[in-house]
Amino acid sequence: MLRVAVLVSGGGTNLQAIIDAVEDKTITNTQIACVISNNKNAYALERAKNHGIMEKCISPKDYETRAAFEDALLNELLEQKIDLVVLAGFLVVIPPKMIEAFRNRIINVHPSLIPAFCGTGFYGLKVHEGALQRGVKLTGATVHFVNEETDGGPIILQKAVAVEEDDTPETLQRRVMEQAEWKLLPQAIDLIANEKITVVGNKVSISK
Amino acid sequence: MLRVAVLVSGGGTNLQAIIDAVEDKTITNTQIACVISNNKNAYALERAKNHGIMEKCISPKDYETRAAFEDALLNELLEQKIDLVVLAGFLVVIPPKMIEAFRNRIINVHPSLIPAFCGTGFYGLKVHEGALQRGVKLTGATVHFVNEETDGGPIILQKAVAVEEDDTPETLQRRVMEQAEWKLLPQAIDLIANEKITVVGNKVSISK
Repeated sequence: MLRVAVLVSGGGTNLQAIIDAVEDKTITNTQIACVISNNKNAYALERAKNHGIMEKCISPKDYETRAAFEDALLNELLEQKIDLVVLAGFLVVIPPKMIEAFRNRIINVHPSLIPAFCGTGFYGLKVHEGALQRGVKLTGATVHFVNEETDGGPIILQKAVAVEEDDTPETLQRRVMEQAEWKLLPQAIDLIANEKITVVGNKVSISK
Repeated sequence: MLRVAVLVSGGGTNLQAIIDAVEDKTITNTQIACVISNNKNAYALERAKNHGIMEKCISPKDYETRAAFEDALLNELLEQKIDLVVLAGFLVVIPPKMIEAFRNRIINVHPSLIPAFCGTGFYGLKVHEGALQRGVKLTGATVHFVNEETDGGPIILQKAVAVEEDDTPETLQRRVMEQAEWKLLPQAIDLIANEKITVVGNKVSISK
């Protein structure tokens, strides 16, 4: 069983997609070991409780230094013997020490087709604002491993989503979530849990 | 009837896709008025002849200065009363004077999902080499109007194409042509011929 930690900051709709996929067995060989939020008011923590999943708030506010917070987060993952860390709307920069300790074992979902509309400055609604400003007809989402470069890690899965004539950043954000993010993230976890994924350099191979 | 000039430099597979679409009425209200090549040996010229389409070589080699070549090209388009210029593998930088004279009446197909793998340096196989190096799982093609910025004009249509495990730049290039370029280019011409397209700023609206 792959022991997964899901890191969240907000509502946790991506978390819910993962919980649902584990419960309906779209994801196999996987246990959501814990949900960790940097924000004690995140509704994602309620979602975890509702499904009997261990949840914990680890907030920078409760530590004297950033380093102490980062150590607490990393230690929690190590103590829980986590195999895979899933960033599901976690608004904290991942410390280099954690990337090092969990090389190719941290995944993130980004709401665009990387390398479009990614990197520093492209987060949340800004990604969709960028896509609408450029007038693209296709956008989408990307699940990738996290490395030292923002949105620069090996790409696991991508899915395209059509931009509609009357889209606002908000409607586009919602459609990308529904049509891409909520599908790709469970799919990527299942592939990792079932050892279908090999990373060579910056490339991901998926076996059948 | 929309009078179209197709500008080519090589084999002309995109030209063939357009000819076929006009003949089978996938494209309506359109006449291919002429095919112009900068290279007298381009097989695209043979394709035009085979279908009774006027063809002409306008080569920089036949003019004393670049400006004289550019004027000859522009004059040909004006004399032929061309409504739409289609770049179908035309390896010549479009002169600013021609962009100005044919504002939002020149279209190009680029073999990626713009803004990924586009701009200076990304042409031909280099586009696909870039996609494979980054390890993307989706690429595709984009049809756009030509403005002063390389691959920076208003986007008309985009279509995604999956990257396969064993792709080389060559196999990927071929699949992007077959699955995207040869479909998008005729579709864009048909939309323009049937007045379904409005350009506002850098954005294209498509009416039903």
